[in-house]
Amino acid sequence: MLFTDITVLDENLKVRENCYVAVDKDRISYIGDTMPDEYNGRVYDGSGKLLMSGFYNAHAHSPMALMRGYGENLNLQDWLNKRIFPFEDKLDGEAVYNGTMLCMAESFRYGIVSTSDMYYFCEDMARAVLECGAKANISRSIVNFAGIDPGKLPSMKEAEELYGRFHNTGAGRLKIDMSLHAEYTSDFATACALADFARSLDTVNHIHVSETAGEHRECIERHGLTPAAYLAKAGLFDRPAIAAHCVYSTDEDLDIFKTKGVTVTTNPVSNMKLASGICNVDKIIKRGINLAIGTDSVASNNSLNFIEEMKIMAIGCKATTLNPEAVTPEDAVRAATLGGAKAQGRKDCGALKVGNKADLIVLDVSVPNMYPVHNMVNNLVYSASGSDVLLTMIDGQVVYDNGEYPTIDIEKVISNANKSTKEILKRL
Amino acid sequence: MLFTDITVLDENLKVRENCYVAVDKDRISYIGDTMPDEYNGRVYDGSGKLLMSGFYNAHAHSPMALMRGYGENLNLQDWLNKRIFPFEDKLDGEAVYNGTMLCMAESFRYGIVSTSDMYYFCEDMARAVLECGAKANISRSIVNFAGIDPGKLPSMKEAEELYGRFHNTGAGRLKIDMSLHAEYTSDFATACALADFARSLDTVNHIHVSETAGEHRECIERHGLTPAAYLAKAGLFDRPAIAAHCVYSTDEDLDIFKTKGVTVTTNPVSNMKLASGICNVDKIIKRGINLAIGTDSVASNNSLNFIEEMKIMAIGCKATTLNPEAVTPEDAVRAATLGGAKAQGRKDCGALKVGNKADLIVLDVSVPNMYPVHNMVNNLVYSASGSDVLLTMIDGQVVYDNGEYPTIDIEKVISNANKSTKEILKRL
Repeated sequence: MLFTDITVLDENLKVRENCYVAVDKDRISYIGDTMPDEYNGRVYDGSGKLLMSGFYNAHAHSPMALMRGYGENLNLQDWLNKRIFPFEDKLDGEAVYNGTMLCMAESFRYGIVSTSDMYYFCEDMARAVLECGAKANISRSIVNFAGIDPGKLPSMKEAEELYGRFHNTGAGRLKIDMSLHAEYTSDFATACALADFARSLDTVNHIHVSETAGEHRECIERHGLTPAAYLAKAGLFDRPAIAAHCVYSTDEDLDIFKTKGVTVTTNPVSNMKLASGICNVDKIIKRGINLAIGTDSVASNNSLNFIEEMKIMAIGCKATTLNPEAVTPEDAVRAATLGGAKAQGRKDCGALKVGNKADLIVLDVSVPNMYPVHNMVNNLVYSASGSDVLLTMIDGQVVYDNGEYPTIDIEKVISNANKSTKEILKRL
Repeated sequence: MLFTDITVLDENLKVRENCYVAVDKDRISYIGDTMPDEYNGRVYDGSGKLLMSGFYNAHAHSPMALMRGYGENLNLQDWLNKRIFPFEDKLDGEAVYNGTMLCMAESFRYGIVSTSDMYYFCEDMARAVLECGAKANISRSIVNFAGIDPGKLPSMKEAEELYGRFHNTGAGRLKIDMSLHAEYTSDFATACALADFARSLDTVNHIHVSETAGEHRECIERHGLTPAAYLAKAGLFDRPAIAAHCVYSTDEDLDIFKTKGVTVTTNPVSNMKLASGICNVDKIIKRGINLAIGTDSVASNNSLNFIEEMKIMAIGCKATTLNPEAVTPEDAVRAATLGGAKAQGRKDCGALKVGNKADLIVLDVSVPNMYPVHNMVNNLVYSASGSDVLLTMIDGQVVYDNGEYPTIDIEKVISNANKSTKEILKRL
């Protein structure tokens, strides 16, 4: 693909107009102000369009797409106990595959190229990801309420098998991460055992941390430690890690993240919608901690609209700190792209740069909501609509093209997701 | 226009599938489960689509579109003094017309059919609205810092002339409202004079109320009264009124709004982005006060994405009250449609009902982000993308149709807005 005469958001998030960008196989091979000397392949007319890195969704539970809008306006306990848990109890591999495929289609439409995805039936998630051309870091969420010997825990075994079978498959598109669901869903022995196992692997440890005030407080009551301090003590931050949420993380917790090189993945829409609170991401950015953005599941979002996610992250932080200077548009774009790629351990991703993987999106900037252009990055974060994405490319392969999904039979994906949903509802 | 086989959100916000809806001239003439007996005109295939009332934007300053993204990440004083006021100082009628046209185009794209629009150079705003087929309630914002005798205030004279010349023109599409900018920008004599003048008219009084903590506190310091109590004392709530913002309104203020029948227009995105705070709209709804939604200006939003506005209103309120049960999806849709129409004094608007004005929008609900459908209203508020709007119709006239703007020369509108912006920047 050769993009001609296109506005570009470069690796430093600077706007360059009238550029030419070439993709060779899975990588960006040329960025310049003139046509490259030789080019064979599809030419994409970029006038009125913006080319930039795709988005890296650094915390999600894709199969939960089947529960989109299932149980609105309930308190957390009723939502979980009356809606989510009973529904999840009836899930099977086929439903998980269908939910994941639906999420991948939606991700492509919104410019998401890669997803840190924590759930179970991970083999079926992996199947979906490999099939549709997406990137993902999939992790089997480990939960050990019952105090089972970690060495005998089936989910630990599953995580190990998953890693052996799928890690770095699909030409590196698919990675397997390790995941302790959270402090409050396992005992300390399990946390330590997972940390020990992960130490020998090339993975990211993906964990829910301080999502709600109650969870944060109860951890301190149980252990005399915050969730971040507890997880650090277990050794889970000795590998690169994603701490998802961190709404109630303290200044000392941020010190731990900074020292250990932990990524904080904020989930602004989900945190607001579940009434968990609003994360002060400005503080995290100012500390020099790597910040990434997650959608969390569609059951608590209820979409994968990543441009909306950037905007809500920024304005939510301004509102809660009462500081309009908090979070610049560049901060938001960096978290959505490079911050997420880093979180996933994808070193050659997340920036428009020669030699990097061609994970690219094109936005329509010729629509009335994108004028005038005092500053294109401002407009991108605050004025673009999520579905102004016209094209999404992953490793050089087009996966979304103006309403078409070249790697997916979209009607089948939607109909299968609907069918699985109905079947589960019948079984309830 | 005849919509066939379409899913409908009816006047009670109930979802009805496979409906037929006919429009005769400017009104809805038929809603049923079968084809009407006779029909001539355009037939619109509604499969995979949702038909509902258009959105009523109940607080805006359209000409400020020219300042979209001009001065991000500044504190309020710098934003106003270094950016907004100097730019506004160079505005002229032509620039205001061009900014309004750009906003109307964007409004149509996002399904907004009518706008309560407070600014100056109102004749030029009126010209734009009449030309493009929009609805609007335009008001000349009255400011009297200098303590001029209200009888000699040029803006008061302008408001009067505007009313005489434009009120209820364009077959009732255009209404003229009265506007005191706010408590803190005029003296009490001016507030009373405007209230007296408005008493004899068929208008809405449109006023900024308790937008920031500082404004609210300083009013109490000045007058021993909250802004709401002060404005009520001046008589400005003796006519139907819009109190815009109300982020810091007290329980007693809400009593005043309830007793006087005042509409509260919340501006969730603008309030968050300017770091003013988050309005507890749930309390307003539960009191039985009419709630409407506004975008405020594009300079502080920075878009007119009304679906996003509904979502952010709902989740912002959940986050700030720490109550996930706050604001139902139906509450949000009602505020965006009927609440706004009521605020504007448009009794035959805001609901899909035979005999009502045909202010309608069609949404694409066949996109992956809209499946599965556990509840269509949930999906509409939380899962739809702003630009999933496919068609916007005002008084039976199509103003937006899948990327086309039948009543507007969109290229000219964009180029004129850009030109005006550049000219003003040059004069600075």
